[in-house]
Amino acid sequence: MSKTKFVYFFGAGKSEGRGYQRELLGGKGAGLAEMTRIGLPVPAGFTITTEACDLFYKNGRKFPPNMMKKVDKNIKILEKVTKKRFGDDKDPLLVSVRSGAARSMPGMMETILNLGLNDVAVEGLAAQTNNARFAYDSYRRFIQMYSTVVIGLSKEGLEGKLHELKEELGVKLDTEINAEGWKTLCGRFKEFFKEKTGEEFPQDARKQLEGAIAAVFGSWMADKAVTYRRVEKITGLKGTAVSVVQMVFGNKGDRSGTGVCFTRDPNSGENEFYGDILINAQGEDVVAGIRTPIKLIELKRIMPKAYKQLCEVRKTLEKHYRDMQDLEFTIEDEKLYMLQCRTGKRSPRAIFRMAADMAKEKLITKEEAILRITPEDIERLFYPVISDKISKSELETKRLATGINAVPGAAAGQIVFTAETAEEWHQQGKKVILLRRETSPEDVGGMHASAGILTATGGKTSHAAVVARGWGKCCIVGCEALSIDEHEKKLIVNGREFGEGAFFTLDGNTGNVYEGELPLDRPEPPKEFYSIMKWSDEMRRLKVRTNADTPYDAKKARDFGAEGIGLCRTEHMFFDTEARRLAIQEMIVADSIESRRVALAKLLPFQREDFTGIFEAMNGLPVTIRLIDPPLHEFVPHDREGQEAVARQCGVPVEKVAHRVESLKEANPMLGHRGCRLSITYPEILEMQVRAIIEAACICAKKKIKVFPEIMHPLVLDKKELSILVERTRAVAEEVFAEQKKKVDYLVGTMIEVPRAALLADEIAEIAEFFSFGTNDLTQFTMALSRDDAGKFLPDYVDEKKTGIFTDDPFQSLDQSGVGKLVKMGIELGRKTKKKLKIGICGEHGGEAKSVKFCHKVGMDYVSCSPYRVPIARLAAAQAVAEEK
Amino acid sequence: MSKTKFVYFFGAGKSEGRGYQRELLGGKGAGLAEMTRIGLPVPAGFTITTEACDLFYKNGRKFPPNMMKKVDKNIKILEKVTKKRFGDDKDPLLVSVRSGAARSMPGMMETILNLGLNDVAVEGLAAQTNNARFAYDSYRRFIQMYSTVVIGLSKEGLEGKLHELKEELGVKLDTEINAEGWKTLCGRFKEFFKEKTGEEFPQDARKQLEGAIAAVFGSWMADKAVTYRRVEKITGLKGTAVSVVQMVFGNKGDRSGTGVCFTRDPNSGENEFYGDILINAQGEDVVAGIRTPIKLIELKRIMPKAYKQLCEVRKTLEKHYRDMQDLEFTIEDEKLYMLQCRTGKRSPRAIFRMAADMAKEKLITKEEAILRITPEDIERLFYPVISDKISKSELETKRLATGINAVPGAAAGQIVFTAETAEEWHQQGKKVILLRRETSPEDVGGMHASAGILTATGGKTSHAAVVARGWGKCCIVGCEALSIDEHEKKLIVNGREFGEGAFFTLDGNTGNVYEGELPLDRPEPPKEFYSIMKWSDEMRRLKVRTNADTPYDAKKARDFGAEGIGLCRTEHMFFDTEARRLAIQEMIVADSIESRRVALAKLLPFQREDFTGIFEAMNGLPVTIRLIDPPLHEFVPHDREGQEAVARQCGVPVEKVAHRVESLKEANPMLGHRGCRLSITYPEILEMQVRAIIEAACICAKKKIKVFPEIMHPLVLDKKELSILVERTRAVAEEVFAEQKKKVDYLVGTMIEVPRAALLADEIAEIAEFFSFGTNDLTQFTMALSRDDAGKFLPDYVDEKKTGIFTDDPFQSLDQSGVGKLVKMGIELGRKTKKKLKIGICGEHGGEAKSVKFCHKVGMDYVSCSPYRVPIARLAAAQAVAEEK
Repeated sequence: MSKTKFVYFFGAGKSEGRGYQRELLGGKGAGLAEMTRIGLPVPAGFTITTEACDLFYKNGRKFPPNMMKKVDKNIKILEKVTKKRFGDDKDPLLVSVRSGAARSMPGMMETILNLGLNDVAVEGLAAQTNNARFAYDSYRRFIQMYSTVVIGLSKEGLEGKLHELKEELGVKLDTEINAEGWKTLCGRFKEFFKEKTGEEFPQDARKQLEGAIAAVFGSWMADKAVTYRRVEKITGLKGTAVSVVQMVFGNKGDRSGTGVCFTRDPNSGENEFYGDILINAQGEDVVAGIRTPIKLIELKRIMPKAYKQLCEVRKTLEKHYRDMQDLEFTIEDEKLYMLQCRTGKRSPRAIFRMAADMAKEKLITKEEAILRITPEDIERLFYPVISDKISKSELETKRLATGINAVPGAAAGQIVFTAETAEEWHQQGKKVILLRRETSPEDVGGMHASAGILTATGGKTSHAAVVARGWGKCCIVGCEALSIDEHEKKLIVNGREFGEGAFFTLDGNTGNVYEGELPLDRPEPPKEFYSIMKWSDEMRRLKVRTNADTPYDAKKARDFGAEGIGLCRTEHMFFDTEARRLAIQEMIVADSIESRRVALAKLLPFQREDFTGIFEAMNGLPVTIRLIDPPLHEFVPHDREGQEAVARQCGVPVEKVAHRVESLKEANPMLGHRGCRLSITYPEILEMQVRAIIEAACICAKKKIKVFPEIMHPLVLDKKELSILVERTRAVAEEVFAEQKKKVDYLVGTMIEVPRAALLADEIAEIAEFFSFGTNDLTQFTMALSRDDAGKFLPDYVDEKKTGIFTDDPFQSLDQSGVGKLVKMGIELGRKTKKKLKIGICGEHGGEAKSVKFCHKVGMDYVSCSPYRVPIARLAAAQAVAEEK
Repeated sequence: MSKTKFVYFFGAGKSEGRGYQRELLGGKGAGLAEMTRIGLPVPAGFTITTEACDLFYKNGRKFPPNMMKKVDKNIKILEKVTKKRFGDDKDPLLVSVRSGAARSMPGMMETILNLGLNDVAVEGLAAQTNNARFAYDSYRRFIQMYSTVVIGLSKEGLEGKLHELKEELGVKLDTEINAEGWKTLCGRFKEFFKEKTGEEFPQDARKQLEGAIAAVFGSWMADKAVTYRRVEKITGLKGTAVSVVQMVFGNKGDRSGTGVCFTRDPNSGENEFYGDILINAQGEDVVAGIRTPIKLIELKRIMPKAYKQLCEVRKTLEKHYRDMQDLEFTIEDEKLYMLQCRTGKRSPRAIFRMAADMAKEKLITKEEAILRITPEDIERLFYPVISDKISKSELETKRLATGINAVPGAAAGQIVFTAETAEEWHQQGKKVILLRRETSPEDVGGMHASAGILTATGGKTSHAAVVARGWGKCCIVGCEALSIDEHEKKLIVNGREFGEGAFFTLDGNTGNVYEGELPLDRPEPPKEFYSIMKWSDEMRRLKVRTNADTPYDAKKARDFGAEGIGLCRTEHMFFDTEARRLAIQEMIVADSIESRRVALAKLLPFQREDFTGIFEAMNGLPVTIRLIDPPLHEFVPHDREGQEAVARQCGVPVEKVAHRVESLKEANPMLGHRGCRLSITYPEILEMQVRAIIEAACICAKKKIKVFPEIMHPLVLDKKELSILVERTRAVAEEVFAEQKKKVDYLVGTMIEVPRAALLADEIAEIAEFFSFGTNDLTQFTMALSRDDAGKFLPDYVDEKKTGIFTDDPFQSLDQSGVGKLVKMGIELGRKTKKKLKIGICGEHGGEAKSVKFCHKVGMDYVSCSPYRVPIARLAAAQAVAEEK
């Protein structure tokens, strides 16, 4: 333990840390160290490592031994570098204490500015800078931050005091308050502090620092931070680092300011410098979105020297980090200081544009470009826009207001005034728009649950904008026309009043807010999306198919790049129309093989027609058709009326239908009479389905459509079982070929979804021409976990704070160590028997990136997923190759 | 194909076949060959192999090429040996054509006697033997057998003719009919034949033979034979062999006869010659039980020479085969011929007595003695007797009649008149007594479904007796006081009338039939049972524990030889009394951890008391206690009344209870919120249960009772999950030790019943101190097969005729290739981590012999099963060792 280095210093052009030490120093610490090292203007300071934070928790929220000793040592060095003394009365060294984890969690953790001030030092600062207003502004900010962050007093209580003061002074803006005003506020804050804590506000700088460090560590486990990590699936981090940095002041007057900028436009992705700046302000004013900032370009006019310096920093950093950077800076008396540098969040469109542009600029390779896209980026790319069926003029009549278009995409839903309501209503299946004056980190759960976010204040770099952008979630900020009464749950816009539950539509592209629920469409992706996809296709080995049950879905998936159908569920077709439904129900109610055949004969033309349409849509590509899978119980009506309809159709008493429905009930239908077990019991169902498939294939082949049917038996668990099914399948196919005087090639294979089938895959491969892993069911059986019921306890298993047994929901991302072991075993055994056995996957996992990479690694031939996830699978398959390099 | 030898000759002291060739020649063929070889008096003949039968079916019920050529060749040899000509007019060679599979299937397949007779030859035979009655008796028998067996005419139709004739002649017994009578009957039979088939009865001997062989082959797949094989779990046989044997005649007069005997008493097992004989009769008369035979001992008086010869044969054969033999013989004019020799079926008591006696006589080794017992033998040993609470005099007043005590044991139930009704009523859960004039092979399904069998005719070697004895099923035959009207479903006994459904009680030990349903007791096993068990215990490596939830069961299992408890289900205790049930229900309805704790505190003393009782009962032996396993839904009342009681108990509105009950419903409870998942969600349940166990252990230890508790977590699927559970378990244990100021050794382990746990057993073994395979659930998950629902389709999977996918019901006998592979993997992985990891099994399979042997093979430490199956497991564990030698 004594060897562990807890503190890394940076300043005066040197740094103990490096940019790649993000895990240890956090993003902020690593960025400060690196910027210092490469000669950029950075105030001096030091970073306490994430390991110290980890030990803090392991020690029961106590600092590791010696840590504060090292901090004290670094304060001494800092004093030497800055030529100021910490806790000095005349010219005090003031510091900021900043959080920063390895992965950016915007606004989720705490920062304390102006630490080191007290009742005496504030006077010294005022004298030393000859700026009493600045000194007391800094002090009131410090008292507020310390009181809320370190002590935990209510923010509202303190802000109420500011509000009171403004009313007393008859002013609206903070900038209108003078030195005396801030001094009064400092006094009232300290009274409030004493009243609430029974103690004086701490005057000792060392004690202030200790409290601040502990508070930053503590913020790592605050509810909002834990929630954020869960939502963002951030795991495996040790904690937050703490950077203690000499203060520079953007609140010193009109030649000072503070800003946030991006080296490229984070919304469009265009290679254009982009940012906001607030004159005479400190950093938290920007992020909190309290005042609406000015555009970065205006800095050129106001402070041309500082602007030029910033442009150089932009170039240096983007080249250095080979990615778009998100920068924080402060200008103190026209001098530029860099306070943060991290890879910037960007909109889904910008992600594609930047990745493709940078690859074209040779800043990065194509592999890197591909690895920079996440599956969620693709999903978000297809987030909706307002349908163009709505005419411009109609749209205009519905427009209520226009705000700042912070995150593109559109959203329609019911407005709610609190994050809690957003979560509740979302759980009830409602679409909600979260309406807030400004969002705060506490709102993150509700923001995630909302379809769109609308705030009255803030700019494009405000909390709401940054968080929503990361999710690609439609967000409009700074919509000043909104007058929100959060308490009364009332919104007034241009004189009109709306209550909770009113329908609104947001257009994140324009910033327009509309009344009512407008129809939305999926947008066209940017052209860079196609470049990235093309590169992915060139790179990947794994084929990507789709799960599609209709010609419509098949066509759509083909447009998304699907190379075949990996799962066509035949039973969905049974529900399509009344006639079909009645025919299948008649089949189920039938009590002799003859009457079952009569009913099945009615279904045959429907199924043949469906398959013909799908074969046509997939001309030239393989189509895997799964025979009937769900238990018959799912097809029959459970209400009297429905049963009467079936009784009429079949000409039997309704009691008979009811009795049959009753007799089909199962204690555990998932483990019941379903899948190929139905074809074992009722071979005539198999016969009808195979006949429909092969007849459709022959009909298409005669029309010169290239068909490659692959007939798939579900829920197989034994070689002999499969051999009986395959024999029956081939017998029917031969019969049809003879009738049609036409032959087509086809395969007969099996799903591997029962653990036993994976365990005995070598035997089953003797019969099967292909395997398709049904990992939905395989997960259910291997983990003894019902998808339908797991909602009651699986959250406890995935919750890091409760148990952390699983890192992912195993129904979303394949359980690679357990279920994956069985999959690997199944593949190895299957290929032992048939070296070239065609193997794919057709569960939900086929469209989930981590699982797709697993499929690549274990040597599958293809994955199959829902149409919209096809691009995700294509990308993930390429990433799997890129990662191998 | 041309090399295959289809026919094996025997005769004149030589034989091509051998006694060990049962698979190829069938039991009968092998016996005839062997008896010929060792010089016993056997008529000459030849056997067509089971392989020919196999090919017969593979060829679509056609003889394999060349087979009949070989038969013709062997007929020529037979003619030479017997000096008679097949189809001769004057002195015809007559043969019997007999079925015989590798395993005895008494009465299930067909036999044809006197083949070779026709209208001319019968006169030749009459002249040659100077016995027209004999000749025509033989001919009428042949016509009847040929017509029914080969052609398929109804037996009833032909027997009706015999009945008519008897009425015309005014006689009752067959023996009263003279030559003319039989001749008349032959004529009527032939007319009947022509009327039904449109053809003359075949006169050509070669054609008769061909038809008879095909008919015997065909009988292999007759319904009754297939049913018998399913019931007896006979699989893997190729078919039946056919033996064609020169006829010898027991129907030549009073110096002739035919009989069946056993080398020891098949009921008591005593070393005493035992059998029945019918004078002036052919073999089928004995088996069919048409006439009541005389005792074997009487032969000594009637034909002392033949008797002496028979006694020598008995000695020779028992020594030769080293087991009790079941013999068929015919005496023709005082000359003895052996017609069959096979290992004889015997009663369960006799099985033990014979095995132990023969080992003591050094005829066989102890290992062989052990291998001769089957698990069913043990089960049947404990079949019931009439309770001795019923006084002798009371019993006598209930006695209706007395028959022949064919198979010991007692049975009580409702009488039925047909096998079909027996099966139906049995399925409805009723206990039935099958009442028949005589049983026939078609009745075998109904016989199996009955608790007891009662027939009006037949002897101890009749069909009913032989079949029932094999099953150890109570059977009384030859109860002549019964007058049965099968058509009207009426029984008259001593003037009293009974209808279907009347309650009867049978005592198979005495042959007494009682009115009403008398109470039954389990009997004391014979002393030889204990010898065999002692030898087994000396031999086996596997420990045998029991599944027991109460001190009563624990004590009983200990009496049966259990060496510990392998599974104590704690939840059964919750249902024991109203107070307990209400407490658990209160716990479930509780909506806060505090109120749950209050309810659990009420359960604690109950559970502690239960465990104390069990520890006392198992003093010195380990006790594995499984924490709560079933979903909570199983504990709550589903009716309004029950819910109201819970509501009163908890002081909450009944709607709240109803709502909670509703919310607990699961789509697939087997895969739902159960097992250790409950302890993850509600740690307080685990805490209460562990506290109860450890407190009970401390209390017992203070009383000098030796306790070895093993706490077992069910449904574990992950190492981290188990580690959380184990940590909580140990924390509670330490707490109790501190309170009680007493420590006891205990283990914490896991069930391996989720496939994932078996797959990751190496990781789980890092935490677990023992594994117990729960193969009931493991089978459900690995095969995706719900035990509760499989009844609807699993029979199709086990039915040899429908699919034959499984040879056994996987819930009865472990699926060794699939589930077993996972078990093996789990053991290997577990022991890779912990070399000496204690491993057992606690599913139903732990008491099933094949599965127990599997557990031995894969290296488990113990099996655990229900108390009554403990002796079976002890035996099977020893057999596993014996079989390795």
